[in-house]
Amino acid sequence: MTFPVVGMVGGGQLARMTHEAGIPLGIRFKLLSDTPQDSAAQVVGDVVVGDYRDLDTLRDFARGCDVITFDHEHVPTEHLRALEADGIPVRPGPDALVHAQDKGVMRAKLDAIGVPCPRHRIVSDPQDVAAFAAEGDGFPVVLKTVRGGYDGKGVWVVDSVEEAAEPFRAGVPVLAEEKVDFVRELAANVVRSPHGQAVAYPVVESRQVDGVCDTVVAPAPGLDEALALRAEEMALNIAKELGVVGHLAVELFQTRDGRILVNELAMRPHNSGHWSMDGAVTSQFANHVRAVLDLPLGDPRPRAKWTVMVNVLGGDYPDMYSAYLHCMARDPQLKIHMYGKDVKPGRKVGHVNTYGDDLDDVLERARHAAGYLRGTITE
Amino acid sequence: MTFPVVGMVGGGQLARMTHEAGIPLGIRFKLLSDTPQDSAAQVVGDVVVGDYRDLDTLRDFARGCDVITFDHEHVPTEHLRALEADGIPVRPGPDALVHAQDKGVMRAKLDAIGVPCPRHRIVSDPQDVAAFAAEGDGFPVVLKTVRGGYDGKGVWVVDSVEEAAEPFRAGVPVLAEEKVDFVRELAANVVRSPHGQAVAYPVVESRQVDGVCDTVVAPAPGLDEALALRAEEMALNIAKELGVVGHLAVELFQTRDGRILVNELAMRPHNSGHWSMDGAVTSQFANHVRAVLDLPLGDPRPRAKWTVMVNVLGGDYPDMYSAYLHCMARDPQLKIHMYGKDVKPGRKVGHVNTYGDDLDDVLERARHAAGYLRGTITE
Repeated sequence: MTFPVVGMVGGGQLARMTHEAGIPLGIRFKLLSDTPQDSAAQVVGDVVVGDYRDLDTLRDFARGCDVITFDHEHVPTEHLRALEADGIPVRPGPDALVHAQDKGVMRAKLDAIGVPCPRHRIVSDPQDVAAFAAEGDGFPVVLKTVRGGYDGKGVWVVDSVEEAAEPFRAGVPVLAEEKVDFVRELAANVVRSPHGQAVAYPVVESRQVDGVCDTVVAPAPGLDEALALRAEEMALNIAKELGVVGHLAVELFQTRDGRILVNELAMRPHNSGHWSMDGAVTSQFANHVRAVLDLPLGDPRPRAKWTVMVNVLGGDYPDMYSAYLHCMARDPQLKIHMYGKDVKPGRKVGHVNTYGDDLDDVLERARHAAGYLRGTITE
Repeated sequence: MTFPVVGMVGGGQLARMTHEAGIPLGIRFKLLSDTPQDSAAQVVGDVVVGDYRDLDTLRDFARGCDVITFDHEHVPTEHLRALEADGIPVRPGPDALVHAQDKGVMRAKLDAIGVPCPRHRIVSDPQDVAAFAAEGDGFPVVLKTVRGGYDGKGVWVVDSVEEAAEPFRAGVPVLAEEKVDFVRELAANVVRSPHGQAVAYPVVESRQVDGVCDTVVAPAPGLDEALALRAEEMALNIAKELGVVGHLAVELFQTRDGRILVNELAMRPHNSGHWSMDGAVTSQFANHVRAVLDLPLGDPRPRAKWTVMVNVLGGDYPDMYSAYLHCMARDPQLKIHMYGKDVKPGRKVGHVNTYGDDLDDVLERARHAAGYLRGTITE
């Protein structure tokens, strides 16, 4: 057999769903997981348990892999360079990935290539935050540690110089950004391959609750066609300019005055693309696998007029399996995706997808199922 | 976690694709495989290598499983009864499965419940075959060993008493059947759960080459609506009367005079249902998993006007991966499903699915891809 081995670093749900997408292609999948209980480790055959921060572990793991890709963006840049020096293709490569690891580097690069961003600069202390605020419309100001944040962690919205002290306690550089007066959040998902082919998924609307993605609607309802096209082109351009290989999610603010500004970048399959598993001809996971193997990409177009994804967060009831009876009986078209993770309050443990012609119906079905699984709806 | 463990006996491609379908449901999957290289064993985390014909092996395997199901129909009935006596649900159960294991039992049961079959009876020797022929329209006659045949193996079409000797050499009972003058072959796929819920997939046309399934078109083109409904009802009735739990494939002959006769039964996901992976709201594999767990079943309706499946058989070129470049670039909507099996001439190593509104186009795309992967098309 000449089928390649894809080495996946990280055992989370993105790795789990990438494995699922690789099975039909006959791709052999090797996983580096923190524990044997991680989401992906439960369903993959070839699992190495080890610490991705240890170079020797990474090197041992990479031996026999045809390409290395990632469930997360936390692998140290110098380790990725070492793997490349060993002759192992790393996709996305360290020069691209740094833009998803370091928000300071990301903002500087997006400025350099002319991509519109919220007003921003690196700040040195609370007084500097006050100065940054005064340079614009004043407080509130958004502060972010340049590394390590996700799902609202490592992000603060501060209203005063006193509140600005907290982000500096970790001793890492802090980025200040204007708090954008946005109408809604959008996401432009694209996939790019080493030979430069790229595909763009329809721009989606992403609704957050407490800083965590809650609902994604594909395509974004009522989005002006020209603006949608501009967002797709922007994401394709960022992928090209940053040398991304694989999936790139560009999280966007749509402002009241009709602009789109880049909020965050993620270089891996992304929560805003989970709808594609049931709603697109080719899912983001299948296209990520194809991209890192430099295979021609699949059609990203939607299969339904509307697809809605709602995340399933952990609630008070640990037993989500019992809820299947109600959810499946109520909606035979419902698509459940559970990650095999223990239920903890607020933890993302799965998502549901629904699709159809009537957006209100599709939204209601997804929200009902996610709420019932979580335990916030009991009817 | 309260998620159940499904024990799958047999490591072939049906087990592989059932695992794939179980991942999104958070189902834990345990595999009993002949070798660590079997199709499913390559992609499942929890694999026991052992011989399903050995009762102790089966019993050890079944410990910790919430339900046992199958990739094939070869597990001895007495072993299944022993597992049930141990308190392990076996789905489908031995009383149902015997109808897929023994063609004599199957024919007797279908006669008893009034399902139309080709003229048939158990024959004792070549002279008895000649008598069977004389009772009808003479030779040719179809002879089948009552156990162990598949994909044309264990089946003979004989034109004379001399040719009728071969099937008796194995010393197992032989079933004689009239050679039906059929227009085409159809298949009615249904899934039934322990609490008696059942769903029917649209009736498909199945085209065989050399006794092996080559192409499936869903739904069967030009099939009279009343006849389609009758075939679905027939399959649902067989599932109920035989007590099937899980997927049941009913292979049918459509005769020149507008009747449908049952050819074969299979109690597991089936080649004639592979189209459902990309062409139906819920695939046969997902519904099989839901059925054996007694979960409500998913919507079996098609997502496209036409879906075509073409099997990929092994040809002269062992390297099918290289063919991906051409196939994926030519058709970005193509769905490839490879089984991780070594290429041997004539061996089923994968299938492709295509879908769309124009049947000629959908057929051409699937045939081209399958032919290119096999190596019979080189353009």
